[in-house]
Amino acid sequence: MSDAVSIIAAKRDGHTLTSAQIDWVVDAFTKGVVADEQMSALAMAILWRGMTRPELSRWTAAMIASGSRMDFSSLPVPTVDKHSTGGVGDKITLPLAPLVAACGAAVPQLSGRGLGHTGGTLDKLESIPGWRADLTGDEIHSILADPAVGAVVCAAGADLAPADKRLYALRDVTGTVESIPLIASSIMSKKIAEGTGALVLDVKVGAGAFMKNLSDARALAEAMVALGTDAGVRTVALLTAMDSPLGLTAGNAVEVEESLEVLAGGGPADIVELTVTLARTMLTAAGIEGVDPADKLADGSAMDRWRAMIAAQGGDPGAALPVAKESQVITAESDGVVTALDAMGVGVAAWRLGAGRERQGQPVQAAAGVRLHAKPGDRVLAGQPLATLYTDTPEKFEHATAAIADAWTIGDAYETSPIVIERVGL
Amino acid sequence: MSDAVSIIAAKRDGHTLTSAQIDWVVDAFTKGVVADEQMSALAMAILWRGMTRPELSRWTAAMIASGSRMDFSSLPVPTVDKHSTGGVGDKITLPLAPLVAACGAAVPQLSGRGLGHTGGTLDKLESIPGWRADLTGDEIHSILADPAVGAVVCAAGADLAPADKRLYALRDVTGTVESIPLIASSIMSKKIAEGTGALVLDVKVGAGAFMKNLSDARALAEAMVALGTDAGVRTVALLTAMDSPLGLTAGNAVEVEESLEVLAGGGPADIVELTVTLARTMLTAAGIEGVDPADKLADGSAMDRWRAMIAAQGGDPGAALPVAKESQVITAESDGVVTALDAMGVGVAAWRLGAGRERQGQPVQAAAGVRLHAKPGDRVLAGQPLATLYTDTPEKFEHATAAIADAWTIGDAYETSPIVIERVGL
Repeated sequence: MSDAVSIIAAKRDGHTLTSAQIDWVVDAFTKGVVADEQMSALAMAILWRGMTRPELSRWTAAMIASGSRMDFSSLPVPTVDKHSTGGVGDKITLPLAPLVAACGAAVPQLSGRGLGHTGGTLDKLESIPGWRADLTGDEIHSILADPAVGAVVCAAGADLAPADKRLYALRDVTGTVESIPLIASSIMSKKIAEGTGALVLDVKVGAGAFMKNLSDARALAEAMVALGTDAGVRTVALLTAMDSPLGLTAGNAVEVEESLEVLAGGGPADIVELTVTLARTMLTAAGIEGVDPADKLADGSAMDRWRAMIAAQGGDPGAALPVAKESQVITAESDGVVTALDAMGVGVAAWRLGAGRERQGQPVQAAAGVRLHAKPGDRVLAGQPLATLYTDTPEKFEHATAAIADAWTIGDAYETSPIVIERVGL
Repeated sequence: MSDAVSIIAAKRDGHTLTSAQIDWVVDAFTKGVVADEQMSALAMAILWRGMTRPELSRWTAAMIASGSRMDFSSLPVPTVDKHSTGGVGDKITLPLAPLVAACGAAVPQLSGRGLGHTGGTLDKLESIPGWRADLTGDEIHSILADPAVGAVVCAAGADLAPADKRLYALRDVTGTVESIPLIASSIMSKKIAEGTGALVLDVKVGAGAFMKNLSDARALAEAMVALGTDAGVRTVALLTAMDSPLGLTAGNAVEVEESLEVLAGGGPADIVELTVTLARTMLTAAGIEGVDPADKLADGSAMDRWRAMIAAQGGDPGAALPVAKESQVITAESDGVVTALDAMGVGVAAWRLGAGRERQGQPVQAAAGVRLHAKPGDRVLAGQPLATLYTDTPEKFEHATAAIADAWTIGDAYETSPIVIERVGL
């Protein structure tokens, strides 16, 4: 107990924690020797005082050491993964993982479920009949080693950075989520433990993202790139815009549909641009040269990988996707040009329609979600459909409509802005 | 849960908490709805961001409202109490309470036990055969109403600011003790709930005190005076020096002995000066004029009150005090003038000899302690006794000697400095 107090007091007073202090406190927290009320006070002190780069690297290493670390070094091809900090309509992982595998890398994507207004990749994939998220370490290995597949998107096992899992749950109820070092360490401890050789981070910035402004997003990106680099993972981050939703869908099955359009060589321009940009960045980070991902979308090989990847996890890539029992249309109230579309409003609507969950462990509706008919830059007339809402439980329409009704700003002129704002690292 | 998080986040982000937020969070913490890990995070955020005067007054009121509040307004004389933030050799309450009663006020002193290097008033009084600290509310009332007694020093009941009791235990293990608003609120919630009409705070400052520097001590005094004033208690604080121990004794029975010397009209000059100064300040705060406490020491009426006060709580004022089984003398290593005597070293030695406890609930030795033979300003010769250590358990001498051996600084010249440094309030 007295050790915990002296460590909390050191951080509280603005000192740098020693490696021994960090190792001890994380290990003791994992074992329950350091109590939750001590760790939450320490988390608040870290939120206040921050951590130096060596402190944060050690903290992250201690989180990783609390569990097991995967190792894909025996694979014949380089491994590379992508992590997004979460945005509305962000289904990029779905086309990206098979695309990068088609270009010659292995993609071990250990992912999470959604909570709140941003959806979860696993929830989206689970709308595909038969597909399962839970794989053993051996299954992950053999899928990655299979030259016809090479990509896996599955649930992170309970033994991956368990201290971080406990800490995250604690931060969630103690007002200590909003610490850039702790956010960086939480993401990177899982990604480093996952065993990838290279990593591309998609750090979202804007009204629909966790990071609302560029300077916070940049600080988070820099902290994560430093952590990856210090742990021997070739890491690069892209800061990308999250003011409007990505693409034209937010939900589960509707996002799988849109991903299939991209893999078929079509799909919304913003999704294609971000998918190809991230794929190129991943290949560079993995040290793979001379392959253009755009070609692999055009020639159908990315789609072949998708089918193989879904089938390898028990899914039927040819099966029809679930369709919602009920739908409702939102229409424009005036003529003009859409000058903004609030990602948060769209994300909250999809969540309220049943695509997301309020508490961990709740089921989600596969077919619930939003399909957008007008995005920034589109000209609309009064009465024209702006979006269609989908759910199996129509009593949810009212609450969802309240979230999305004012999401569109209709004006006179729209200026486009780039999706990729800035690059950090490598 | 979400309410707790939004309150923590508000304070974390530097906002002022509303009265409704403060009332809710203190009440919910008392009921266990707000978990310890949430309250410790909030305490760290308060330590970081501070509290405004209205916030702190409301916080203190909520702590008081978590239990019952005593009421002495039916007494025919004004009530006044003194609280010291804790110093080595600080037995002032013992002569002071009966002295102020002899001057015409009622003194309801609800006190605590010692923990760490500063002794507890109740522990000291318990060295008197038969004396008991636990009184009912009715007993307290009737002792105060008795014109021959008028002073009571007893244990604070469990129902006095119970939320503060829980919070203090939590702060102790989470590195959140060192917050001036929380220290002020903890002290004042108990003192206000105790029902005194006027209050004099003796805020110790120096190497042997909790507050090491004048600006912290002043900030604490100002916060406490504001809290008392806002709650309708006439409050004044004196900042007093705690570099050297007060008087010539530190322990339990040895401090009672020294208090008896003061009540008999003698005793060390520093103890007499501080006792009379505090008594005068208390009488002014209570609105009592025309009585000089020095006269009440000289004419024996303070000693009469002492005897009545001890007897009223079951003690035998004539009984011999316990004497330690073993003693050991510390001698000077060189000739010179004592220029400093480290209160902390003396306090820790007394504690290690058995006068104090390491954990709540442990018993203490009545006869353990330190008697000083040389204080700052005294001329000593090599080999001359500097102090005598007392304990019933001689194996403690070695550890105690290690703490006290270097406490004396021997030099050439000593300049006296005042005991009372500054006054805050009224």
